[in-house]
Amino acid sequence: MAARGGDQPVNESKTGGDTDRPIGIFDSGMGGLTVLQALADRLPAEDLIYFGDTARVPYGTKGAQAVRTFARQDAEFLLSLGVKMLVVACNTASAFALDYLTEVCPLPVLGVIAPGVATALEHTRGGRVGVIGTSGTIRSGQYQHGLAASIPEERIFARECPLFVPLVEEGLLDHPLTDLAVREYLTPLREARIDTLILGCTHYPVLKPAIARFMGTEVRLVDSADSLAAAAAHCLADRQLAHEPRERRGELTFYLSDIPWKFTEVGERFLGQPITDVTTVSLDELARERSDPGSVRKDTS
Amino acid sequence: MAARGGDQPVNESKTGGDTDRPIGIFDSGMGGLTVLQALADRLPAEDLIYFGDTARVPYGTKGAQAVRTFARQDAEFLLSLGVKMLVVACNTASAFALDYLTEVCPLPVLGVIAPGVATALEHTRGGRVGVIGTSGTIRSGQYQHGLAASIPEERIFARECPLFVPLVEEGLLDHPLTDLAVREYLTPLREARIDTLILGCTHYPVLKPAIARFMGTEVRLVDSADSLAAAAAHCLADRQLAHEPRERRGELTFYLSDIPWKFTEVGERFLGQPITDVTTVSLDELARERSDPGSVRKDTS
Repeated sequence: MAARGGDQPVNESKTGGDTDRPIGIFDSGMGGLTVLQALADRLPAEDLIYFGDTARVPYGTKGAQAVRTFARQDAEFLLSLGVKMLVVACNTASAFALDYLTEVCPLPVLGVIAPGVATALEHTRGGRVGVIGTSGTIRSGQYQHGLAASIPEERIFARECPLFVPLVEEGLLDHPLTDLAVREYLTPLREARIDTLILGCTHYPVLKPAIARFMGTEVRLVDSADSLAAAAAHCLADRQLAHEPRERRGELTFYLSDIPWKFTEVGERFLGQPITDVTTVSLDELARERSDPGSVRKDTS
Repeated sequence: MAARGGDQPVNESKTGGDTDRPIGIFDSGMGGLTVLQALADRLPAEDLIYFGDTARVPYGTKGAQAVRTFARQDAEFLLSLGVKMLVVACNTASAFALDYLTEVCPLPVLGVIAPGVATALEHTRGGRVGVIGTSGTIRSGQYQHGLAASIPEERIFARECPLFVPLVEEGLLDHPLTDLAVREYLTPLREARIDTLILGCTHYPVLKPAIARFMGTEVRLVDSADSLAAAAAHCLADRQLAHEPRERRGELTFYLSDIPWKFTEVGERFLGQPITDVTTVSLDELARERSDPGSVRKDTS
């Protein structure tokens, strides 16, 4: 799809700088690796730094204030590494913290909600759109609000699916438990005869087969990764921030705040290959007050 | 059961002080309210302070180092409130951090694993004991190690049940999804013909009906709350730390690091009554370096 810069909540008044600097991506955990993969495919010359807050995952069950504090610390950490652009891969963090980060960060900030909404609006035929996500994402109303700018509210159907994240983390992609959970959560959406369904959580794309089996192949499943990557490419070009084309692919660097027990399996599930060479970031480091010039302002509200 | 002080990893060389001071209880989230309830029933004169680390819950999927950092910060916070005894209600924190906390805290520290093991050993008839818990708790081997002091290893059967916590948090106590998960996880334990099953996670007692339906009523289900409360009473008496009997019940005070979306429902599920008057503790406050004399030493290892 065409990138829609106008839909992106990017702070237009600030620019990054050096084209050689990496792009920073953060997520509540490892689900955002699906977004990293899309960025790597679309922007092969760019160096990408991924931070997954695996020590505090999930964000989706937690209140807005905690998510904003997490997001501020995650962003501060990536900014301390000199990134030129910040990608918020986590839907819940995009829902609660994107406005704040866009305001205080001295560089472009992209979230996953606006690209997901734009893609769903492009694809819907009958104008009946569903969105599924964590409790936090759905209760924030951000997807519904974005869709409501173009379609009537009575054709927007939202559902929290809190068990999908643990089911994916457990690797139960093709299991009766997952089929039962899909039926439990999605029956109202099937009955509402939606034609398009936004997968509003980075974990959900790996459940596409189970969701498609239940919803039927005529329902279009939308995830934000590809459209976010297109928007990122557009934004980089627009700001003269894109890395010049080069022979070798850019580097991928991984930071996590914890090495969870099922790290290897979960990493492969989202990235399609094992993650090697991870650096762990301690919680004390994340909570550290930073005095770097590019640092995000502390906000204890 | 009789309290078994000798099984408790309490630091014998240190004492607390004033009998009027409260007891501090911490847990990864709200599951530890089952332990709080048992303490309140057993020790009605005591003031109890509960801290639930709801911003960083769960601990059970996370690595040992993250859990130790969480536990240190949780303990430091409670010590800053002047508690006379520390109760680690979380099984995963007990598994990974009890030794450390016992060593560095200037007051008695009790965990839930030793009381659970002691109760299981009291109740088993055939000496075939199962234990279920989070990935962290089971992989730590602490329950298995405790049991192995008295029964042969080939009669100890341990299983991780990672979906039980999210199922309980979602309130699916009597639901086909829970029955299916119970069958998935517990079939090997039923086939092993265990006679006693330790519920090694504060969330699991509310699943007792579903577990009993599958395992059969002849299998004894053990949770640590009551035996931990007995051990706490014994320890307080032993150290001359018990509050003198009084007319009114002691006060319950609640601190959480986040108010989760389903706070009210989950609170009622574990405590049997709504929680009122909760104070939230910010992550910045939790990570703050403390210089109080009673503070836990900083350990960045």
